[in-house]
Amino acid sequence: MKQGPGLLFVVSGPSGAGKDTLVDALLARSPQLRYSVSATTREPRPGEIEGQHYFFLTREEFERRREAGAFLEWRDYNGNLYGTPRDYVEQTVAEGYDVIMKPEVNGALAVQRAYPAAVLIFLVPDRFSYLGERLLARRTETNEEIAHRLEIAHQEMEFIRSFDYIVINEQHRSEEAVEDLAAVLHAERFRIHRYTDDRLRSVEHT
Amino acid sequence: MKQGPGLLFVVSGPSGAGKDTLVDALLARSPQLRYSVSATTREPRPGEIEGQHYFFLTREEFERRREAGAFLEWRDYNGNLYGTPRDYVEQTVAEGYDVIMKPEVNGALAVQRAYPAAVLIFLVPDRFSYLGERLLARRTETNEEIAHRLEIAHQEMEFIRSFDYIVINEQHRSEEAVEDLAAVLHAERFRIHRYTDDRLRSVEHT
Repeated sequence: MKQGPGLLFVVSGPSGAGKDTLVDALLARSPQLRYSVSATTREPRPGEIEGQHYFFLTREEFERRREAGAFLEWRDYNGNLYGTPRDYVEQTVAEGYDVIMKPEVNGALAVQRAYPAAVLIFLVPDRFSYLGERLLARRTETNEEIAHRLEIAHQEMEFIRSFDYIVINEQHRSEEAVEDLAAVLHAERFRIHRYTDDRLRSVEHT
Repeated sequence: MKQGPGLLFVVSGPSGAGKDTLVDALLARSPQLRYSVSATTREPRPGEIEGQHYFFLTREEFERRREAGAFLEWRDYNGNLYGTPRDYVEQTVAEGYDVIMKPEVNGALAVQRAYPAAVLIFLVPDRFSYLGERLLARRTETNEEIAHRLEIAHQEMEFIRSFDYIVINEQHRSEEAVEDLAAVLHAERFRIHRYTDDRLRSVEHT
């Protein structure tokens, strides 16, 4: 019964909520979990491996696939195109692995439209002041840039209701947030709507 | 954010699925979890404590409260009345504790109607043969009684779709089922619909 296809988890939220650290921690502890590999038109950097870090595509090939609906979401960042290939997700899930990705909020909502079975988790820092502090701690942005980011973060909050879960990443308690996320990943497979009628019948008649 | 009211969890399923053992194991490991104390018209047995094992009521008082809608579900068993007091659940949940109960399937569905925020978990043994074996192992029932119980169990299965989760209690792997249930209890508090608009605003504006 516990076999069967995996699930797609989408972790998003305001910048600085700690997505990267938490998703890395989940991947490190969950052999059943795979990171969604993105496609990109940017040049490979030294050490980057095709199919592991990215699928590297020419712009022409990326656009052709995009028109064919091959991406769950895509975006233009710094003049390069990035996208989430639907076939990678579908194959990996069919093999029984769960897949996790961490797009921006707009990307998460696009994934939800393209792949309604996806489970969307909104990750928030405990306080916006904390978010501001983390961005300040990066020391790479001006106060104006930070104010702009906070404004965007507030806008992103309006989309929370489209998500399935909210997990709070409290300062100095990220192990707790990892446990919270792990519980969501664990529990989701038992939700009744994950069971097709055929799977339910197999429960009834074995 | 993690404070706030608790949740009501209803664990049900066919007889012999192992509800008692698993719910006891959950209560032993979760200080935040309380067992729902039932009301009954039967006589207290030696050692039974009012308000801990049961709320002991006269039949007259039980019926008066039942008419007043004081029970989330009730049933007549062996000539005695048993019911789940709504006020105990509501008070305990308001104090921030989660509450767990393990009624029969019909009782679980009655609780869902009376308390729509309840989380219903359907617990099934891995195989019906296993269910038969467990009932046989009790050595207190005739084969005819067992066949009747299995028939009822099959009927109960038809109600599965009304539940929120299915958890399988596989033979010799009940620790796994405890982990599965614990993950459901843990994850449910992060579901987006647990957040009132006020709580969401507190996330946005703190």
